[in-house]
Formats: sequence, structure tokens, C-alpha cells
Amino acid sequence: MYKKIITPRIGETDGLRYINNTAIADWFEVARNPIFKIFNPELELTYKKWNLLMVHSDFNYLEHLYFGFDVEIHTYITKIEKTSITVYHEAWQNGLLCANSNCILVYYDYIRQNSMEIPDDIQKHLQEHFITKKELKKMK
Amino acid sequence: MYKKIITPRIGETDGLRYINNTAIADWFEVARNPIFKIFNPELELTYKKWNLLMVHSDFNYLEHLYFGFDVEIHTYITKIEKTSITVYHEAWQNGLLCANSNCILVYYDYIRQNSMEIPDDIQKHLQEHFITKKELKKMK
Amino acid sequence: MYKKIITPRIGETDGLRYINNTAIADWFEVARNPIFKIFNPELELTYKKWNLLMVHSDFNYLEHLYFGFDVEIHTYITKIEKTSITVYHEAWQNGLLCANSNCILVYYDYIRQNSMEIPDDIQKHLQEHFITKKELKKMK
Amino acid sequence: MYKKIITPRIGETDGLRYINNTAIADWFEVARNPIFKIFNPELELTYKKWNLLMVHSDFNYLEHLYFGFDVEIHTYITKIEKTSITVYHEAWQNGLLCANSNCILVYYDYIRQNSMEIPDDIQKHLQEHFITKKELKKMK
Repeated sequence: MYKKIITPRIGETDGLRYINNTAIADWFEVARNPIFKIFNPELELTYKKWNLLMVHSDFNYLEHLYFGFDVEIHTYITKIEKTSITVYHEAWQNGLLCANSNCILVYYDYIRQNSMEIPDDIQKHLQEHFITKKELKKMK
Repeated sequence: MYKKIITPRIGETDGLRYINNTAIADWFEVARNPIFKIFNPELELTYKKWNLLMVHSDFNYLEHLYFGFDVEIHTYITKIEKTSITVYHEAWQNGLLCANSNCILVYYDYIRQNSMEIPDDIQKHLQEHFITKKELKKMK
Repeated sequence: MYKKIITPRIGETDGLRYINNTAIADWFEVARNPIFKIFNPELELTYKKWNLLMVHSDFNYLEHLYFGFDVEIHTYITKIEKTSITVYHEAWQNGLLCANSNCILVYYDYIRQNSMEIPDDIQKHLQEHFITKKELKKMK
Repeated sequence: MYKKIITPRIGETDGLRYINNTAIADWFEVARNPIFKIFNPELELTYKKWNLLMVHSDFNYLEHLYFGFDVEIHTYITKIEKTSITVYHEAWQNGLLCANSNCILVYYDYIRQNSMEIPDDIQKHLQEHFITKKELKKMK
């Protein structure tokens, strides 16, 4: 599991004084940085080196999030397949689970524009952060 | 169906020169403005008048979106339930369906913090923009 | 002068129910697209083709901007120098000038990382949209 | 002086693989949180409690900022006047000053819509973080 602390920005609140839903996606994206690093240690944003393509994401908005209190993002790898992984995020504020999200990242060759098999060494590294959704539920 | 034209911003591209996935959620949000108006004609962003709460969204990223070409957002209401609706969006660029998304909006009292039944007059108005996913598929 | 209509997004409001100041910079950026096109007709975002570097910007926030009403961005070129131009933007909503901004764009070689002299044909094209700040004031 | 560490987000890069200029304004905004707290300890985003209005900002973009490396924001109060203050920010990455900005915040009554004199106790608190631009230059 990876933890990332986010300080909400005023610009991320909206006219209802809650954090706007679109900001949550931004937070989960930055929380994936350590996963990007497993695949691309220098985080080089080039077609040659970048190798993950997001094909799907879903979000559940469970509780309002507020400006003025830090947010803790928890990030897990919940599925490892031949050519893709599923990443699961939670946003916690003041002890409350406020939002969660799944996203599917395909291991991808940006030059040839096709998916690739995830190599063994990366598979091993991913296993260290792997947890099934079932195990995750039991923990709570 | 509602149409909204979006001109991509440079700041919405990312280091891979594609539109970043998080920007697509922003575009779909602004494309919901006419639906917000059905529920709240003045679009008044107050707890008294605002009456929709997003509880879920999901996104499929099908093709890269690019800076330099306008994007057409198509918005449909694909489910009308007692206390909530499902809105379906598509992002088209240069004749290609590049992303789609579903989101569930609950008819909500922000002061009492509970869901409400959608009144008949709003239900009727929503029906005019309603299409089932099945019908939508047939059209294509 | 260039005009661009912007539909404010809920996510661009902040907890005070006004448009957040940071969103105004995003709107002015997209309003510069036709100027970018003078320098780079295909708007190609590559180091080889992109040739403008923003080195300075300033903003005056004169009136609150609101969600629910379209905004008109007016864009002028107010200075043309050997290697740079100054672009001036205004944001109008409901007949009110709400914000303005100047930004300095250097004609720039991203591969050699140095400024360049603006070629004559581009200079001529820029002249068509040029207006001095003095003339601009008189018009009002 | 206040320090705030920012982890750049992929969505904050643009097609040129640098951090987009608009993101820098977002970072400086979140770096002002401790200053907002001097004026409004609970950071309550209501017209009754919020009491700062930004009327001007300017930015100098000195060096490219990159994804993959944390950024340190330094924030100073460089002017304290009867009804307003000037805040000065710097963005540092890998030992390089990459951008700076001044912004003017007016002490403001959002209900009566007018500026107010900054009370003595807040003035005193502000003094603790005050530094003239001259002194700031000497330090470097």
C-alpha cells in the first residue's frame, strides 16, 4: 500500500464548498506516481520510455471532502494480469473514507501503439503491493 | 441529446501530448449544464437551490484526444429512477469516439442531507432527453 | 481582436461561489490559440514546431465572475518587438469587464533553447491584430 | 517564510513535457494556506468568515519545471498596508529558482463588499513573516 498526503487547494473546492469531484481524479493520479516508477524508474514522459495507458476508471463519491484538512490517499494494486493491472485508491479525510476508485492501466508500447506483456521483474515488484479486494475488505 | 463543443486547452494536454484523462471529466461536467438547468433553472449554486449529488462515475478511454481540434460532447439521459438519473457522455474528435462515461446523479436535499423523489414535472422534462443504451447502440 | 466564448464549469467555481482566479488563466490560455496558430499553423506541440515561450504574465481581478453565464474573452496584441510580443486579454461577463491580463511570449527555439527574431511574414500577420493600449483606452 | 512541498502531477505537465504555467498559480495558491489561516484560523469558506480578496497577481517564468521531481514553494509577506498585503512566492526545483510571483490580497468584507482595515493583532502576526524585497535580495 502506498500513502500520499494531499493538501486541498481552494481552487479544488466548488460553489457548494465541497471538493469538486474532478479534483479527486487529480489526487489519485499523483498517488500513482510510485506505481509509474515501478514501470519507468526515471518517470520519463516520452513515447520511448512511458509504458502505461489508462483505459478505464471508475469512482464512488461516498462523503463530502473539505478544504482545510489534509487528505490521505491509499493506493493498492488489486489485479495483475498479463498485459494490465488494476489500481485501487481510497481518499480518507478526518478518519472517513470519502471516495474510492479503480483504474485499469495497460502495459503499452507508445511507439508501436500496442499492449505488451508485463516482464517478470516488474510482475515481481508489483506482487509486493498486491492485495485482493477480498483481503482488503477483511482488513476493515 | 445535448451537444457541447469544447476547444482543448494546452494545459489540458500532458507530457505525452495527448489530452490528459482528468480533463475529460471536466468537459463532461460542463456538458451536464443543461441537465442541471432542468433541475435548477437559475443554476444557483446554493444549498437551498442546488439539488444534484454525483455518487458514481466511470470512464472508458478509447482513443487519444489531441490539442488543436475541437471536441464534440454528446450527452444523454439513459436511466431515470425514483431518486436518481444516469447520464451518459461521449467525446468525439475528428469523427472518432474517443471516450465515454456514465455518471449517477441523485436528486438531493443539501440542507437535510438526504435524497428526494424527483417531482413529476422534472421527470417529464427528463423523458424528452431519455434514450436507452440499447436504442443508442442501434443508432450507430 | 479575437473573441472566444467560454462556458464556466462548476469545477472552476470555488467555495466562495465565484470563479476561482486560477481558472481565468486557463481561459486566457485557450483564447491565445489563434495567436499560437499565426506562429505554428498546425498547432503542433513538438520541440521542433512549437515556438512560443511565456516568460511573464500579470492579472487584474476587477469583478467577480459567476457560474451560469457565458464569458467573452477579448484578445489583442499590444506590443510587437524583435523577439517577443505582448498579448492583452479581457474577460467580460454580463457586460462587465471582470478581469484583464498581459502576457509576454518570446519567439523561441525549443531545441537550441534560445530566443529568435520573429520573421517578417509573421510580423505582418501580427500587425493585423495589433492595437496600442492608448488606442484601446480611447475605444472605451 | 513558509515552505510547502508540491509533488507535480502528470496532468500538470503539458504537451511540451514541462509543467504548464497555469499549474504554478495553483501551487502558489495552496502555499498561501498558512497566510489565509492568520486571517481566518478555521479556513472557513463562507462570506461571513472569509476575508481576503485577490485583486492582482503577476508571474515570472524563469526556468522550466519538470514532472518527477518535488518542488519547494517559498512564501513571504513583502508588503503590509492598511487594508492589503503583498505575498511573494518562489518555486524551486533541483536547486533552481524556476518561477516567482507577487499577489495583492485585500482584507475584505464579503457581505458588505468593501475593503477593511487589517486589525492590530493580525498586523502583528503578519510582521513575523514580513521581509522587504531588498532584504530578500541580500539573502541570496
